[in-house]
Amino acid sequence: MSKFWSPIVHQLTPYVPGEQPKISNLIKLNTNENPYGPSLKVLNAIEIETGNSLRLYSDPTSERLVNAIAQYYQLKPQQIFVGNGSDEVLAHTFQALFQHGKPLLFPDITYSFYPVYCKLYGIEAKTIPLNTHFEVDLSDYLRPNGGIIFSNPNAPTGHGVGPGEIEMLLRQNTDSVVVVDEAYIDFGGESTVALINEYPNLLVIQTFSKSRSLAGLRVGFAMGSEALIAGLIRVKDSFNSYPLDSIAISGAAAAMQDRVHFEYTRKRIITSREQLTAELETLGFDIIPSQANFLFVTHPQHDAAALAGDLRIKNIIVRYFNKPRIDQYLRITIGTDDECKILVDALRNIVNTP
Amino acid sequence: MSKFWSPIVHQLTPYVPGEQPKISNLIKLNTNENPYGPSLKVLNAIEIETGNSLRLYSDPTSERLVNAIAQYYQLKPQQIFVGNGSDEVLAHTFQALFQHGKPLLFPDITYSFYPVYCKLYGIEAKTIPLNTHFEVDLSDYLRPNGGIIFSNPNAPTGHGVGPGEIEMLLRQNTDSVVVVDEAYIDFGGESTVALINEYPNLLVIQTFSKSRSLAGLRVGFAMGSEALIAGLIRVKDSFNSYPLDSIAISGAAAAMQDRVHFEYTRKRIITSREQLTAELETLGFDIIPSQANFLFVTHPQHDAAALAGDLRIKNIIVRYFNKPRIDQYLRITIGTDDECKILVDALRNIVNTP
Repeated sequence: MSKFWSPIVHQLTPYVPGEQPKISNLIKLNTNENPYGPSLKVLNAIEIETGNSLRLYSDPTSERLVNAIAQYYQLKPQQIFVGNGSDEVLAHTFQALFQHGKPLLFPDITYSFYPVYCKLYGIEAKTIPLNTHFEVDLSDYLRPNGGIIFSNPNAPTGHGVGPGEIEMLLRQNTDSVVVVDEAYIDFGGESTVALINEYPNLLVIQTFSKSRSLAGLRVGFAMGSEALIAGLIRVKDSFNSYPLDSIAISGAAAAMQDRVHFEYTRKRIITSREQLTAELETLGFDIIPSQANFLFVTHPQHDAAALAGDLRIKNIIVRYFNKPRIDQYLRITIGTDDECKILVDALRNIVNTP
Repeated sequence: MSKFWSPIVHQLTPYVPGEQPKISNLIKLNTNENPYGPSLKVLNAIEIETGNSLRLYSDPTSERLVNAIAQYYQLKPQQIFVGNGSDEVLAHTFQALFQHGKPLLFPDITYSFYPVYCKLYGIEAKTIPLNTHFEVDLSDYLRPNGGIIFSNPNAPTGHGVGPGEIEMLLRQNTDSVVVVDEAYIDFGGESTVALINEYPNLLVIQTFSKSRSLAGLRVGFAMGSEALIAGLIRVKDSFNSYPLDSIAISGAAAAMQDRVHFEYTRKRIITSREQLTAELETLGFDIIPSQANFLFVTHPQHDAAALAGDLRIKNIIVRYFNKPRIDQYLRITIGTDDECKILVDALRNIVNTP
């Protein structure tokens, strides 16, 4: 606390990201990173960018990357906004599109950065409980609001809703912006991007941190009507002209263009997820069917915090949230098949030890 | 304009950065970039970072970079804040430290992003005119305020104030934060960093974009008391956990550690500046003595906008601001000696053509 802080600083509850331990030899299944590295084309693009030209400012419009995304999704460049990770894109979205004096609606169990942004920008939040199956039920969102945001598939549950349900919501909720946070969409969900040209209040947010294997490069993006994107650009250009460095622009553009690497790695992860689900079920875990690169699991006979602690002793980190409704669950990132095997062996050992 | 925008978005006047043209063969003297590329040690550090580990999130605390800066300036890591370019650091500073219900003071002629941040965060701005010599006179800032910010040396004028004058201000202005924006300090000014341990309300902001030749990598930093830095971290962690990518962290840390390259290039630029000043004076230009990597020049017989246009035809870009008091000035970045020669020849040709 300091008298020099703006009053709002005292009220903030900063987001706490998953641990990034500096020890090696850990099986790191706690922050939903991709177990496979980025495409070689990405590494080549970065190498080309690594030279004298770093003395020059990066392109403030990130045109090359915007064009690559537009081409991939068959949208106009004016329908694309890029930023320094989807966290920055979300921050600008909250400020640019959600300050409307009516409450912003989002699930009670979801990405825990949403309430943090609300405090930062003075937005009233109204959380809508997941149903008893831990699913987002969009019919619960038909009430007065200044905006709606949900992750699809949801985190940390992994459950996804279909574009049909989202379109039903968009048909009825036409006066405020609906943001679909698709950080994990490429692992089995169906993107809402196809609805963008029909619904001017739909914004879809994605990231390069998961399915594109580039968490360390910090690139995210939003897609929506030109008016929504123009609002985001106005805020960005009042905050930081050049949020993406030259290397991130080139690397991410190359990632978007390498469909072969993308398809190969995401399919491997989906296959591993189905195997891991089956194996954990044989150990007695209950698992929410996942469309993401993680599983949300609980065991009727074992306390989740204790399980996380026992795994940690065996050098395996998973994510445990000490929060209402989910304090008996673990979120486990899908690793390589070798990592999944080590995890299953460790859990078998733990649950079978009396 | 869109009904979906938050009300504040309609009121923003986004910053317009200097042009980043995509044509080659231009002599680009418009955005104060360093004419010399980054250190080879920076390029090596980036190369090492370019691999599979990009699948993992970057260090949210940028510890390696924070430590390198702390070591360079003999400060504690808790006195260092890093961000995605000094623009992001400034944005967080305005939100974290300047929202106090009293006006923020800054010069009428200075970095034109300051009033943009004020609009973004609803901060009342009170501009203090530069004196008739286009100098910041800090005795004009002894009045009620919610904060004070100025660039030292100032941009676009290049004039700098000494630490003695700044200390006088700090002695008398103890209830609000004083930010010294030292983007250009390494080209001949004297840093205020040495005063940080004495004045808990002093924040010094620097960048890797100028003297460290890394505008394309987007890294800036702030130094101040632990309380001020803690306030910035609270806002940053409510906005984006990982604002610096792994490559930027490693590259910037290497830049901070290579003192030889830094000293060599900044001294070359200072020498070129003195030569260019002398040559332009022989062409009849009036020049404000500069402590920066640019000159702010005017010619009694030639309209500044016309000069900028004539230079553009000759493939030379300089910065012209169509603003009160400075609309007869050009801001010219110090290039290589070859670039300076081409500029002088071009200007000689223009001013001698009847």
